Amino acid sequence: MIQLVVGMPPTSNFAGRDIVSVRDLSRSEIDHILDMAEAMEPLAKIGSDMLHGKIMATLFYEPSTRTKLSFESAMTRLGGTALGFAETKGTSVEKGENLADTVRVVENYADVLVVRHPLEGAARMAAEFSRVPVINAGSGAEEHPTQALLDLYTIKKELGAIDGISIGLIGDLRYGRTVHSLAYALAKYKVRLVLISPEILRMRKEVLEEVSKKIDVEETTSLQQHLKELDVIYMTRVQKERFGDLAEYEKVKGSYRLTSDELARAKKSSIVMHPLPRVDEIDSSVDSTSHAKYFPQVGNGVVLRMGLLGLVFGAI
Amino acid sequence: MIQLVVGMPPTSNFAGRDIVSVRDLSRSEIDHILDMAEAMEPLAKIGSDMLHGKIMATLFYEPSTRTKLSFESAMTRLGGTALGFAETKGTSVEKGENLADTVRVVENYADVLVVRHPLEGAARMAAEFSRVPVINAGSGAEEHPTQALLDLYTIKKELGAIDGISIGLIGDLRYGRTVHSLAYALAKYKVRLVLISPEILRMRKEVLEEVSKKIDVEETTSLQQHLKELDVIYMTRVQKERFGDLAEYEKVKGSYRLTSDELARAKKSSIVMHPLPRVDEIDSSVDSTSHAKYFPQVGNGVVLRMGLLGLVFGAI
Amino acid sequence: MIQLVVGMPPTSNFAGRDIVSVRDLSRSEIDHILDMAEAMEPLAKIGSDMLHGKIMATLFYEPSTRTKLSFESAMTRLGGTALGFAETKGTSVEKGENLADTVRVVENYADVLVVRHPLEGAARMAAEFSRVPVINAGSGAEEHPTQALLDLYTIKKELGAIDGISIGLIGDLRYGRTVHSLAYALAKYKVRLVLISPEILRMRKEVLEEVSKKIDVEETTSLQQHLKELDVIYMTRVQKERFGDLAEYEKVKGSYRLTSDELARAKKSSIVMHPLPRVDEIDSSVDSTSHAKYFPQVGNGVVLRMGLLGLVFGAI
Repeated sequence: MIQLVVGMPPTSNFAGRDIVSVRDLSRSEIDHILDMAEAMEPLAKIGSDMLHGKIMATLFYEPSTRTKLSFESAMTRLGGTALGFAETKGTSVEKGENLADTVRVVENYADVLVVRHPLEGAARMAAEFSRVPVINAGSGAEEHPTQALLDLYTIKKELGAIDGISIGLIGDLRYGRTVHSLAYALAKYKVRLVLISPEILRMRKEVLEEVSKKIDVEETTSLQQHLKELDVIYMTRVQKERFGDLAEYEKVKGSYRLTSDELARAKKSSIVMHPLPRVDEIDSSVDSTSHAKYFPQVGNGVVLRMGLLGLVFGAI
Repeated sequence: MIQLVVGMPPTSNFAGRDIVSVRDLSRSEIDHILDMAEAMEPLAKIGSDMLHGKIMATLFYEPSTRTKLSFESAMTRLGGTALGFAETKGTSVEKGENLADTVRVVENYADVLVVRHPLEGAARMAAEFSRVPVINAGSGAEEHPTQALLDLYTIKKELGAIDGISIGLIGDLRYGRTVHSLAYALAKYKVRLVLISPEILRMRKEVLEEVSKKIDVEETTSLQQHLKELDVIYMTRVQKERFGDLAEYEKVKGSYRLTSDELARAKKSSIVMHPLPRVDEIDSSVDSTSHAKYFPQVGNGVVLRMGLLGLVFGAI
Repeated sequence: MIQLVVGMPPTSNFAGRDIVSVRDLSRSEIDHILDMAEAMEPLAKIGSDMLHGKIMATLFYEPSTRTKLSFESAMTRLGGTALGFAETKGTSVEKGENLADTVRVVENYADVLVVRHPLEGAARMAAEFSRVPVINAGSGAEEHPTQALLDLYTIKKELGAIDGISIGLIGDLRYGRTVHSLAYALAKYKVRLVLISPEILRMRKEVLEEVSKKIDVEETTSLQQHLKELDVIYMTRVQKERFGDLAEYEKVKGSYRLTSDELARAKKSSIVMHPLPRVDEIDSSVDSTSHAKYFPQVGNGVVLRMGLLGLVFGAI
């Protein structure tokens, strides 16, 4: 096992712990995870045998190649092995097996379970039945803790700190689990949150209420008006399918689309993030600007998950 | 390579051998495999590099996530690597390739082939064409040798011995390959076999005839009447699709369903097993009783397959 | 890292290089790759840790179990790990992501990308966007460089040399990417090429033109007439779907089918190759003749890819 020397002792013991929601984590715990991610940066390049002999099972009840590959890459970089399923077709789930049984079966094959599920609360339930730690890789419309953590890590890495920034969440704030988890996580810091979306895709009420109690939140429909004040421009897809009225979609589409021309009006130090895949909400002209951080954000996801796996396995 | 010290020299040489049917194995060979499984118990926890550099290919012509993951976990715990396909969609099989050709291709990619196939005799045919050892992971309605072996291992581990027990096979004894392979395997021991099923799902005649020659077998439709005498209560799914007459299904369904209340009448030391997935033939109230061994049975599958892989590779 | 001693210094530096087309490679570079494949032969048996800690991502936009498993086996034999996707279903591609974005995401998960794509030029485009090396595993109808290289390696291994031989490419020379890549590769050697196909499946004009400039090429519809002169009989599938007129298909089918009887008229030293899967263009009676090299050809694919990976990673 490679010894990582970090500045201070862990603020809490992560070994064997489930990671179900960012809401379960204190700010100091999140800070500790981000520190561990940073410590993983060199290992992401040279590899490590920290988790040699350990097995991670991915239980993906909903397809997500990106998240699955990111976890697999993280596990592999630490010397461990990944196995599992990427969809429920062909699995015992099709034969009528419930999640609790599947968990009690698969925990025999692995040392940690990474669960993705379309239903709210599924990861929590899996964690309750599993003897081995469960990491939530997205469940229902609210929770995607590792995405929120990698977003925080990207902000900290690019801007130096999270406290003190203005962050705009832009696009579909109603259905995207990413922005919900991220809003909950940001509420643990001293940030200003600008929620920018079409009327019908406004941030869910329950998220808005909880987050508003802790930090300064503004809701608006105009990206143009707020672009100048933002340190982080967090874009998301606005999907046609969300609109009952296609005329309405055509109307709003253009105003949640970012181009390099528009970015000329943004803060020079501001960064553009996106959970990806994008369709056309970020024009390819943005890619070559210094603002574009959505591809490095993907690499940050690997080191963040390496840090989290290292912690959950008690290896760091 | 980790050296395992075992009580006595192998009763037969397994290195390079195909594992197609339990009927090919003598009792002393089965006992040796069970001993090897036991020797693998610590390695299933700490891992091993016994098969470092070795590759296992899974050729699954019929989906079975559970069996596939179990083999992959076993191979990984021994330091080896797994690759292969989980369904025939997208493979050369779709382009019209026959099994013999596929085997002669895939043997170039791996050191052992694990084959699952809907047709009787497919694993035997694969073994004939392959230069590397073939392990049958289920073929046709009759053969699933590693399941039968892990069932025996579970019985021995939980009850101390296989000889002398009364075992009830309950539910669908006609279509389930698991109970067929298990019956053949049990016939090599001194056990009493109680076959409990609806009329239309009675044990296949050819299995019944062969097994009856060797051990005491009783056929019955009543679980209730025999529950008290059983040391092993081996449940299986009774699938609605098997019944032409749904009224008939509704009638029998309840009588092959196990609850904790009913289990109160069973021997205190009796164990409940199931190849899983279950649907509702074992009530969840049974899960917390000391009888329930169907989840540990899954873990036993991993160590059993570790033992078998170790033997086939000549590594132990 | 295992040190391989080879006869002469590399004729060019492959470390970090993309392998998109055989047309990008000089003859001396190809010779060097073939030498590296040969050097890999012992490692294919005993394994190696040369690429320990390295990750290969397979991006297969078109299913090909065989090529995917061959690359995975090669990577595993060198101690590396493979991850990726085997079809676009369930991936971000379905959500509308373009290839350039997918590449810039997945390069964060791996150290080399292996790309298979139905469109001409896709691998080239992937290589342009990727920071890590890209290996083309088949793109469009023209390029399948690793297949062409393993074909050359098979010829050299079986016949001792490539220069001086007569090779017949037989069957579908119009749609098969394999024969196109192979023809380009052969044109770098001193060979005589006999193109044998039905009228409507003649070699593509652009390939024919380029290759004819460099080597002696003959086009014909008769396998029978040329069988005797060939050192390499390279068979391919003639697919029914390619024919508008089924009567036409039935007419030609028989004449591109090889049996052991017919092979009696071939050179004793001649070899039969096939990219596989075959359907019935090579009769199973050929399998047991000394001519049959299509199954060893598969194994040659693994060592060739090991050599290529070793070179691209700068490990040899």
